[in-house]
Amino acid sequence: MSKHYIVVSSDCHAGLHCEQYRPYLDPSVMDEFDQYVAERHNHRRMQMEMNADYIEQWEKENELGLTGAWDPVQRDKELDHDGVAGEVVFADADAVTGQESPPFGAGLAAGRITDPRLAYAGARAHNRWLAEFCAANPVRRAGIALVPVTHDVQRAVEEVQWAAQQPGIRGVMIPTMWHTNKPYNDRSYDPFWAACAESGMVVHTHSGEADFANYNDNLGVYVHEVPFFTHRPMFHLLLSGAFERFPKLKFVVTEAGAYWASDLLWKSDINFGGGHTMKKMAAKIKGTLSKLPSEYFGVNCFIGASTMSKEELRRRYSIGIDCTMWGTDYPHPEGTWPHTRDRLKKDFAHLPVDDTALLLGENAIRCYNMDRDALQAIADRVGPTPEELGQDPNYFSDPAEVKAGRWWIAEYDCHM
Amino acid sequence: MSKHYIVVSSDCHAGLHCEQYRPYLDPSVMDEFDQYVAERHNHRRMQMEMNADYIEQWEKENELGLTGAWDPVQRDKELDHDGVAGEVVFADADAVTGQESPPFGAGLAAGRITDPRLAYAGARAHNRWLAEFCAANPVRRAGIALVPVTHDVQRAVEEVQWAAQQPGIRGVMIPTMWHTNKPYNDRSYDPFWAACAESGMVVHTHSGEADFANYNDNLGVYVHEVPFFTHRPMFHLLLSGAFERFPKLKFVVTEAGAYWASDLLWKSDINFGGGHTMKKMAAKIKGTLSKLPSEYFGVNCFIGASTMSKEELRRRYSIGIDCTMWGTDYPHPEGTWPHTRDRLKKDFAHLPVDDTALLLGENAIRCYNMDRDALQAIADRVGPTPEELGQDPNYFSDPAEVKAGRWWIAEYDCHM
Repeated sequence: MSKHYIVVSSDCHAGLHCEQYRPYLDPSVMDEFDQYVAERHNHRRMQMEMNADYIEQWEKENELGLTGAWDPVQRDKELDHDGVAGEVVFADADAVTGQESPPFGAGLAAGRITDPRLAYAGARAHNRWLAEFCAANPVRRAGIALVPVTHDVQRAVEEVQWAAQQPGIRGVMIPTMWHTNKPYNDRSYDPFWAACAESGMVVHTHSGEADFANYNDNLGVYVHEVPFFTHRPMFHLLLSGAFERFPKLKFVVTEAGAYWASDLLWKSDINFGGGHTMKKMAAKIKGTLSKLPSEYFGVNCFIGASTMSKEELRRRYSIGIDCTMWGTDYPHPEGTWPHTRDRLKKDFAHLPVDDTALLLGENAIRCYNMDRDALQAIADRVGPTPEELGQDPNYFSDPAEVKAGRWWIAEYDCHM
Repeated sequence: MSKHYIVVSSDCHAGLHCEQYRPYLDPSVMDEFDQYVAERHNHRRMQMEMNADYIEQWEKENELGLTGAWDPVQRDKELDHDGVAGEVVFADADAVTGQESPPFGAGLAAGRITDPRLAYAGARAHNRWLAEFCAANPVRRAGIALVPVTHDVQRAVEEVQWAAQQPGIRGVMIPTMWHTNKPYNDRSYDPFWAACAESGMVVHTHSGEADFANYNDNLGVYVHEVPFFTHRPMFHLLLSGAFERFPKLKFVVTEAGAYWASDLLWKSDINFGGGHTMKKMAAKIKGTLSKLPSEYFGVNCFIGASTMSKEELRRRYSIGIDCTMWGTDYPHPEGTWPHTRDRLKKDFAHLPVDDTALLLGENAIRCYNMDRDALQAIADRVGPTPEELGQDPNYFSDPAEVKAGRWWIAEYDCHM
C-alpha cells in the first residue's frame, strides 16, 4: 500500500466576524472600532446590491463549512473532508463580503491604514484571537500573525517575539505596500528581519493590496498588477542582500501565483551572474549576493502558490520544485474547497510522486518547520494516495529534467 | 536569388552633445541650462572615476561610429555596415556617460523633471533638433519626439500636432512614470490619445525611468523592476479601454524586453475572457474590452524588443509574431552595433524566413507606416539575405504552431 500524501495547504484563512473581535481589542480604540464595524456592514450591503444571487448561493451551500473560519472543530472536519492534514492560516476568512476582517482592515490590506495606533491595535486583536485558535490544534496549524512593521520597527520586533511564543503561530504577515514609509530594501528594517530569522517566524506578503491610488477603481488594472506588488517585497529583500545578512530568514509570497518566478529568476540570475549582457552594470551589482538569486529559492524564498494552474505545474522545475507550495485557499470561493480531492485528481494525475509530495506538503513542512510525524499520522487517515490521484506510484522525477528547468543557468553560463 | 530582408531597428538613439542643444532652446531657460550642462559634466567625471578603463576603450574603439549620434551621413554608414535599412530614433545617444542627453533630462528619464516649464523646454529643444536630423533622410528614420504629457495635456496635444508635420517624425515618447500626476488610465489624457491616434503618431515608453525613490540607489532592484514600470503604461491604457475609444492608437514598449508578454497576455486573457477562475470579478471587468487583451497586440500594442534573447525568439508565437520588433540599440554598448550581422547569423539561423521578415522589419514598417518600397531599395543594397543568415530559404512557419503559441486561449476556452 502506498503512503498517503501529507497535504499542507499553504494558503488558508481564518477570522472572527468583525464584531466578535471586540473582546480582543484594546479599549482605547473602541470608538474607531464602532465606526469600522459600521463600515463593514455598509460594505456588505453594497456587495449584496451588486451580486446578491451569487453571494446568497455561496453562503447557503456552504453554511456549515464556512463556520470553520472561527470554529476549530468544524474547521478540522473541513480539512479532513478535503484531504488536508495541515494548513497555513492567514486573516480575512470572508473574501466575498469582507465580514471576517480584523479591526481597521489590519489583514490583507493592512498597508492602507494610515494611523500606526490603529494598525497595531487591529493586528494585536487578530493575533490574540489567532493564538487561541491555533492553540486548539497546533499540529495542524501554522498561524500567521499580523505585523504592520512599516509603521514601527521596534514594536514589530516585540510582536514577533510574542508571536514566536504562541503554539501554532509560525509566521508573520507584513503590509504588501509600504506607501510613504521606507521601502523594504532599507536597512532600517534589519532589526525586524533579525528577530524573524532568530525566532524562526516566516515572513509573508499575501495578495490583497496593490497600488490602489493609481487605479481609478479599475478592477482590471488591479488584477493585472497585484502579483507584482505582492512579490515585490521579497525581491527587494533578496536583491539588497537581506538573506546574506540573515541566512535563516524565510520569506513566502502567498496567493500571487508562482508563474512569475520562471522569468524573474531567469532575469535575476543573468543580471547578477551572467555578466556578458550587462557589462556596464555588472561591476556595480556584484558583491551584494554570494549565490545566484535562484539559489535562495527553496532556502530563504518560498512561494505559497495556492491552487496552482496546470501551466505552473508544467513549469515546476523552472519555478522551483523545492520552493513551491500548493494551497486550497479555504474558505475562499476562488479556492478548491470543498472539492479539493477532485481538483488534485484532475491536476496531479500525471505528475511524479516525489514532485507531488514536495508540492502538496513536504516543502511547507520544511519551510514552516512543522511536525512531520504528527502530520503523517493525520494524513494516514485523511490524505490522498498516489492511486487515489490516478498516479503511477513508481513514477519519479528525472534529475536531469529537474536541472533543465532552470535552463538559463547553462544557456548563459550563470555563476557568481 | 533570395530577397534581402528589410531590417528596421526598433530601438536606436540619437542626440546632440548636451551643450549643443543651446541654439534649439528657448532663451528663457538659459540659466537653468548652464546648471544642467555643469551637472552633466560632473556626471561624466563620476562615471570616469568608477569605470575609466571600460569607457575609454569603448569611446576609442568606436570614435567615428559614435559621431553618428548627431551626424546623419555617418549614421547612415553605420546602419549600412550593420545591414539596417531603417530605424526608430529615440533620444539619449550616450548610454555610457550620459553626455548626449536633452536639456534637463527630458529624454529617457523625463518623468523625473518636476518643473513643467523645464520639462517642455527640454523636450522642445530636442524635438526641434530631431526634426532637422530626420529630415536629412526621412525614409530611413522614424524619429520619436519627446512629449511630457503628464505635466500638461493640452500642450502635449499641440506638440503632437507639430510633430506630425515633420518629415521623418513618426511617434512620441511619454514619461514612463507619472509620479504624483494622474495615472495613464485616467480619462483626462483622452485628448492626447485622440491627437496621437488621429495624426498617426505612435506613443512610446522606453526603458530608463523606474521607481527610483524606493531603491536606495540599489542598482539590482532597479534592473529588476524597470521592465514592469516600462510596460505598465501600455497595460493601463489597454485594460481601461483606451484602444476601444481610440482604435487607431498605437503604443510601443521599447527596450524593456518582450518576455513578459507571454505571461501577462495569458493572465490578462484569462481575467477578461476566461471567467471560470474569476467568478467574483468577471462581472465587474467585462464590458471594458470587446476583444481578448492579446488581440490588441499587433493592432494597437507593439513591443520594441531590441536585441532579443534566444528565449524570446523561441517564445515568439506566445509573445506575438505580429507585434514584436527587433532592434540594435545603436549606439549603446549593450546593443549589437557594430556587430549586428554576426548577431543576426547567430540568433536567426534556425528561424523560418517569414517570421524573420516580420521580426526584423515588416512589423515595424506596419507599426510606423514607413515607406516599404523605399526601404526595400536600401535593403537590396545593405540588408542580409536568408542565405547570409544561414537560413533555409524554403523554411516557413507552420500556422498551427503559431496558433499554439497562445496556448491559454484553447486551454481556458478564452473568449469575449
